[in-house]
Amino acid sequence: MTVSYTLEVADAKFGGFSKLLFRWKGSIYRLLYKEFLMFCGLYIFFSVFYRFLLTPKQQDLFERIALYCDQFTNTSFIPVLFVLGFYVTLAFNRWWGQYTSFPLPDNLMMAVSGNVHGTDERGRLLRRTLMRYANLSSVLILRSISTRVHKRFPTLEHIVESGFMTSLELKKFESHHSDFNKYWMPLTWFANLASRAREEGRVRDDIALRLLMDELNNYRAKCSLLFHYDWISIPLVYTQVVTAAVYSFFGFCLIGRQFLNPAKGYKNHQLDMYVPVFTLLQFFFYTGWLKVGELIINPFGEDDDDFETNQLIDRNIEVSMLAVDDMYQNLPPTLKDKHWE
Amino acid sequence: MTVSYTLEVADAKFGGFSKLLFRWKGSIYRLLYKEFLMFCGLYIFFSVFYRFLLTPKQQDLFERIALYCDQFTNTSFIPVLFVLGFYVTLAFNRWWGQYTSFPLPDNLMMAVSGNVHGTDERGRLLRRTLMRYANLSSVLILRSISTRVHKRFPTLEHIVESGFMTSLELKKFESHHSDFNKYWMPLTWFANLASRAREEGRVRDDIALRLLMDELNNYRAKCSLLFHYDWISIPLVYTQVVTAAVYSFFGFCLIGRQFLNPAKGYKNHQLDMYVPVFTLLQFFFYTGWLKVGELIINPFGEDDDDFETNQLIDRNIEVSMLAVDDMYQNLPPTLKDKHWE
Amino acid sequence: MTVSYTLEVADAKFGGFSKLLFRWKGSIYRLLYKEFLMFCGLYIFFSVFYRFLLTPKQQDLFERIALYCDQFTNTSFIPVLFVLGFYVTLAFNRWWGQYTSFPLPDNLMMAVSGNVHGTDERGRLLRRTLMRYANLSSVLILRSISTRVHKRFPTLEHIVESGFMTSLELKKFESHHSDFNKYWMPLTWFANLASRAREEGRVRDDIALRLLMDELNNYRAKCSLLFHYDWISIPLVYTQVVTAAVYSFFGFCLIGRQFLNPAKGYKNHQLDMYVPVFTLLQFFFYTGWLKVGELIINPFGEDDDDFETNQLIDRNIEVSMLAVDDMYQNLPPTLKDKHWE
Amino acid sequence: MTVSYTLEVADAKFGGFSKLLFRWKGSIYRLLYKEFLMFCGLYIFFSVFYRFLLTPKQQDLFERIALYCDQFTNTSFIPVLFVLGFYVTLAFNRWWGQYTSFPLPDNLMMAVSGNVHGTDERGRLLRRTLMRYANLSSVLILRSISTRVHKRFPTLEHIVESGFMTSLELKKFESHHSDFNKYWMPLTWFANLASRAREEGRVRDDIALRLLMDELNNYRAKCSLLFHYDWISIPLVYTQVVTAAVYSFFGFCLIGRQFLNPAKGYKNHQLDMYVPVFTLLQFFFYTGWLKVGELIINPFGEDDDDFETNQLIDRNIEVSMLAVDDMYQNLPPTLKDKHWE
Amino acid sequence: MTVSYTLEVADAKFGGFSKLLFRWKGSIYRLLYKEFLMFCGLYIFFSVFYRFLLTPKQQDLFERIALYCDQFTNTSFIPVLFVLGFYVTLAFNRWWGQYTSFPLPDNLMMAVSGNVHGTDERGRLLRRTLMRYANLSSVLILRSISTRVHKRFPTLEHIVESGFMTSLELKKFESHHSDFNKYWMPLTWFANLASRAREEGRVRDDIALRLLMDELNNYRAKCSLLFHYDWISIPLVYTQVVTAAVYSFFGFCLIGRQFLNPAKGYKNHQLDMYVPVFTLLQFFFYTGWLKVGELIINPFGEDDDDFETNQLIDRNIEVSMLAVDDMYQNLPPTLKDKHWE
Repeated sequence: MTVSYTLEVADAKFGGFSKLLFRWKGSIYRLLYKEFLMFCGLYIFFSVFYRFLLTPKQQDLFERIALYCDQFTNTSFIPVLFVLGFYVTLAFNRWWGQYTSFPLPDNLMMAVSGNVHGTDERGRLLRRTLMRYANLSSVLILRSISTRVHKRFPTLEHIVESGFMTSLELKKFESHHSDFNKYWMPLTWFANLASRAREEGRVRDDIALRLLMDELNNYRAKCSLLFHYDWISIPLVYTQVVTAAVYSFFGFCLIGRQFLNPAKGYKNHQLDMYVPVFTLLQFFFYTGWLKVGELIINPFGEDDDDFETNQLIDRNIEVSMLAVDDMYQNLPPTLKDKHWE
Repeated sequence: MTVSYTLEVADAKFGGFSKLLFRWKGSIYRLLYKEFLMFCGLYIFFSVFYRFLLTPKQQDLFERIALYCDQFTNTSFIPVLFVLGFYVTLAFNRWWGQYTSFPLPDNLMMAVSGNVHGTDERGRLLRRTLMRYANLSSVLILRSISTRVHKRFPTLEHIVESGFMTSLELKKFESHHSDFNKYWMPLTWFANLASRAREEGRVRDDIALRLLMDELNNYRAKCSLLFHYDWISIPLVYTQVVTAAVYSFFGFCLIGRQFLNPAKGYKNHQLDMYVPVFTLLQFFFYTGWLKVGELIINPFGEDDDDFETNQLIDRNIEVSMLAVDDMYQNLPPTLKDKHWE
Repeated sequence: MTVSYTLEVADAKFGGFSKLLFRWKGSIYRLLYKEFLMFCGLYIFFSVFYRFLLTPKQQDLFERIALYCDQFTNTSFIPVLFVLGFYVTLAFNRWWGQYTSFPLPDNLMMAVSGNVHGTDERGRLLRRTLMRYANLSSVLILRSISTRVHKRFPTLEHIVESGFMTSLELKKFESHHSDFNKYWMPLTWFANLASRAREEGRVRDDIALRLLMDELNNYRAKCSLLFHYDWISIPLVYTQVVTAAVYSFFGFCLIGRQFLNPAKGYKNHQLDMYVPVFTLLQFFFYTGWLKVGELIINPFGEDDDDFETNQLIDRNIEVSMLAVDDMYQNLPPTLKDKHWE
Repeated sequence: MTVSYTLEVADAKFGGFSKLLFRWKGSIYRLLYKEFLMFCGLYIFFSVFYRFLLTPKQQDLFERIALYCDQFTNTSFIPVLFVLGFYVTLAFNRWWGQYTSFPLPDNLMMAVSGNVHGTDERGRLLRRTLMRYANLSSVLILRSISTRVHKRFPTLEHIVESGFMTSLELKKFESHHSDFNKYWMPLTWFANLASRAREEGRVRDDIALRLLMDELNNYRAKCSLLFHYDWISIPLVYTQVVTAAVYSFFGFCLIGRQFLNPAKGYKNHQLDMYVPVFTLLQFFFYTGWLKVGELIINPFGEDDDDFETNQLIDRNIEVSMLAVDDMYQNLPPTLKDKHWE
Repeated sequence: MTVSYTLEVADAKFGGFSKLLFRWKGSIYRLLYKEFLMFCGLYIFFSVFYRFLLTPKQQDLFERIALYCDQFTNTSFIPVLFVLGFYVTLAFNRWWGQYTSFPLPDNLMMAVSGNVHGTDERGRLLRRTLMRYANLSSVLILRSISTRVHKRFPTLEHIVESGFMTSLELKKFESHHSDFNKYWMPLTWFANLASRAREEGRVRDDIALRLLMDELNNYRAKCSLLFHYDWISIPLVYTQVVTAAVYSFFGFCLIGRQFLNPAKGYKNHQLDMYVPVFTLLQFFFYTGWLKVGELIINPFGEDDDDFETNQLIDRNIEVSMLAVDDMYQNLPPTLKDKHWE
């Protein structure tokens, strides 16, 4: 489920964002706790290893290695922060781009409701079928990119069952062979059916037909963009560089941030606190930022914060039918308003 | 109230922005002073605790902990600045995006005024009703995202009372059941009513109808975008990472930035100034930047600087009615201008 | 006057930008010299104060305070640079956005010239009046946001005098009461007059009327965007944080960057140069960057580099009249061109 | 082949991106291993040279040079990171811009399918030819910018053979001489043929013809943008600065990061580890980031991650023909849907 | 000449960008070598001055000044890098914006070719004249912003000679007086001529005329944007701050980076290498980045990498005439394609 929280922080009052820190659902804690535990486990392992299992001489070597590691994790040798900043910003822009590419039938349904006429059965049939085709197309495209939608409609039969498609349509759909994604086919049906409706006089003029065609193209463009966002990811190479940077950084921290024997007087090692608070915090922030990247690089998965594609599909078909069927020329009486003078 | 101040700094003269520092309304001081006082309070608590309540030996331990904390708040262990910079930039872009998505009826009202004809009662009724539907839609969407508008119209009855809706319309509105936000319904009425006006000949040609439909779609797209900006926030995870970074940073500052006994000769602790000027400044700037984020992440709240949605609603209905009713074909005489030769 | 200088640096030759450093008009020196002198004055004051007015003991205290201040201005405690970078980038984007929102009548005048017909007086009157309405609207909006334009037209009477409006139009304009900016009214007149011209057959077909309506809407959208850019500034809070950061930074520099007695052997204080060259440079760059922000946050002021709104207004009305009146169907003879074969 | 991997990381679960680190295809390892080996080889060479081939005195000199180099590679003298960050961000935006400029015939084919009528041979011929022209244009432009497509169609004859063009069309194409890329010619044929189809009544009204023209222009604009992206690269100067920065940085690392004799007690040289782990990591990240830039600066090459232009060409012609020929007015029966009530 | 090099680096193979380092044409070396030599000259001057011309006492003073300078050039007192990064990014966006605003007649010529009919002389004349007007407009605007185009057409007579204008048109052009750039006049002729062609029936319907008007407006908008990009530069103040930062930084480097007498044991001055390799590298990178800014701030100059405006003008008129004259209704025979079945 998408996690909406802006209402809670509508006002910038005392404390502000602090209350957001105590949420579990969709939180960074939920995303991160496993990695966090594993990092702690490994840290403890090395700690015990150094303190109890090594001979003094081995400890000496360990300490020198630790100091060596520490020296580099403290300077900017591994450019974690910088690389992460640029990467997450790119991922975020793609993420929002994907959301705004989500095909919503609202414009189309208003065009259909206002321009495909007839209260008789044929009129209703035309309007309903047109909108069904549009919705079907978006279901087909979402099935191929969203794991949630794929689970809901594992086969085309499931789409027929749910009523987005009749079985005759499925047969026609399958009769056309193509090596590529066929999501656009119902939209071609839409174009041809609209053209037929014009011939029948259900669409009264060429301008109205053009409106339908324009809205169809906008709708199709969004489906298409969604498909391409899915196909062309951020180059793998970039993701690998970022991931390797974060992982190796914390790999070296496991050794470099051990508390060394204060008795030996190493610089910055006067205090043995057992729990490396700051390293854990650093792990929390850096890995947390990487997790933000993981979360948003594919918003069509099943994370807490991923887009609720199934809910949107239901919404789209529901409002489509409402607008073109129940609400067609079903106007409230046009009365003088309150401020009429 | 939105705080406009650019006129005051229209010219980059001596002092420039300095005069902006002495404003209280909509200022950072007003947003921040509670947090600031609390931070001071806690700092004083730790200061008193360290100076008067601890035994010398405990003081020694406290000093070592303080030095340890200080070491990490001084280096870039907690990447507050970087994370804040990226976060606020994202939030700012969303904020401006939301503002430019605010549905303004100006284009629509000009199209209605120029293309829905008739000075008789039916003509006026059509024009007024069309614009009322458009405004009603924006009220419905704003009610669901703005706390201010929600307070103004806690129930649909309030909308009827204020004249945006007749009670028959409300009845019709409620007769359509939908699990989702129904803000788009008045716009479907608009489409159907425009279509009927065409049939009646009030809209004289198909091109004019198309213009109404196009402007309607632009208007609806903005309502829809506003709705989606509200639904899909910046992922909670990102906000949590940023907030946790700032809060934990200053948590550790409470201890790490205490003035330690100068007599003990700790490095950079030669002077006991009691008031940690720079830490307070740092608190001011960093937390101030975070507050900017809090302020703009939801511009539909009740902060000083949030959008004045209620005022905009009033403006929109007022100019709508003015343009389509009072001003319809109410032209000043077309005379030769001054430079006619 | 807007300062155009790109022609001088059209080629990246030896020296390149260096010649730009020696300009006074619209320069950073002109913007900054007062602040610079004031900073120098305060620095000298503290310098004299420290060197001649304090007892040795007080000097000692002063030196410790200075060292304390210096320590913090040298590290990144006050994140001036980072905050400035993000802030100026935002301001720059707004600045360019405002410029590209400036309503230019060129598209509109071409549509009017090509589609509102008749070489007789009525034809001329219609074309001229339409363009006058468009220009009037932009004058009304600019009056409310630009100090220069406001000075030129302090009252609506001045607009009438300059010929943008007839006095009958002013009367009509004032007869409509609205609590909000009424800049859009002449555009409503435009829409209604265009609609009337269609009825009179001066506009020959519906498509041409639609073209006028579309260009009108584009024009209006730009006026509106300009109005909103003016209304909704970068949140005051952000500007305050940036300003306070820069000012407090240099406030502490006044003390922290004093040359301390070299004889006392403080670190990095071996040399008494009297003139703190680098601090002055730093002041120049940081405050200079802030001045860039001040300059561009409101491009409708009277700075050297602000938009030349008055000149643009003159240009717009001049070319409008030229295009729709003098040039209407005033074509050069259509002859075979040179390369005709 | 484009490397799609987002499905694998659809959910931000434990480990997350870690599994992406173990891919070879399209990976950073594959891109980088040669440079990496070469860097290692040179490092070993200098290492052996220093340890075994120099006299003690020469070693001394080497050590001083190494320390000198080290000093500068550790500070931010060579601004590798910063320059890389800005450069890769620019390159990434161009990369995505190029992808979204890829001309897809989907909108055009729907317009043709819905508006060029006739099930007879002439109708089919018109629709197929129109779409063939559109596809031919994109093939011509891609041939000039994509090495893959150029390999597939080394001469225009190959295009004729593959069926995108008839030999008569080729003759006509070659009869027009132009010093510049002639990719736009088939689109002019499209415009003229559409115009002829209108005369023949195959396109039934002017609005439909306009739709074809509009979609044609959108299609052409994309072809054109692709051509210009290819022509105008990121200025060579910028690329050279970035490359020189990275290369020189690691050139100096070869000497500056040698392990010096620990016995001599140089600072930070207490431990001789033989393998300079961190320098290698640094090489991996920085050069890896540069490689990201190299990869995306021209997405029409033959890298693993470059766009699959040939596959897209096949897809485009296939779906074009499917939509305008097989699917033309080939609708499934319009039946009541499941939820009809 | 624009330097295209992406084809050379189409594949990210071994070495990658390295081969780009050895180009002279359009290279950073060519841009920078004069500054580089001058910097070296000054450095040598100060070096000789310090080593041979000063008395030991003066040398001592010089050394202290040098150390003082060095201290500040090493820290981030002068924020060269940061300021440069933001500045070049802004300049780059403008640069690409200017390129994509270049008016290309392709859309317009297709509209003219498909919609202005008649194979007789009058038809040809109309089509050729319309396209000539469009091209003339872009020549007029480019003349005022591009030094190259201005050299080619120093007076309007030259434009007449080259065939873009007839002498009668020039006379008409000059008969209209305007204080501002008159580049838009030929486009007004275009609008009026198109309107006349409609009256003559050469343009068959209103929709087609509208198409011509729309494409005309797009074309004009690009001319206008180009004009405004030229008029409104990045504020001079910003450019001055950046330039002053870079220049003063290297000014202080001239002294601060001298090799001081190693015998005196100054910190980091153990080795006298005579050639300050890293300072020269730093000069190369920083000044190189500034040069990138100089190069792209005005892409209409005569740098190697500036846009080839003259070539584009030739291309535009050539393809315009080809499309509307030679190719008008000059279609290859419409035959069945290879895959017809």
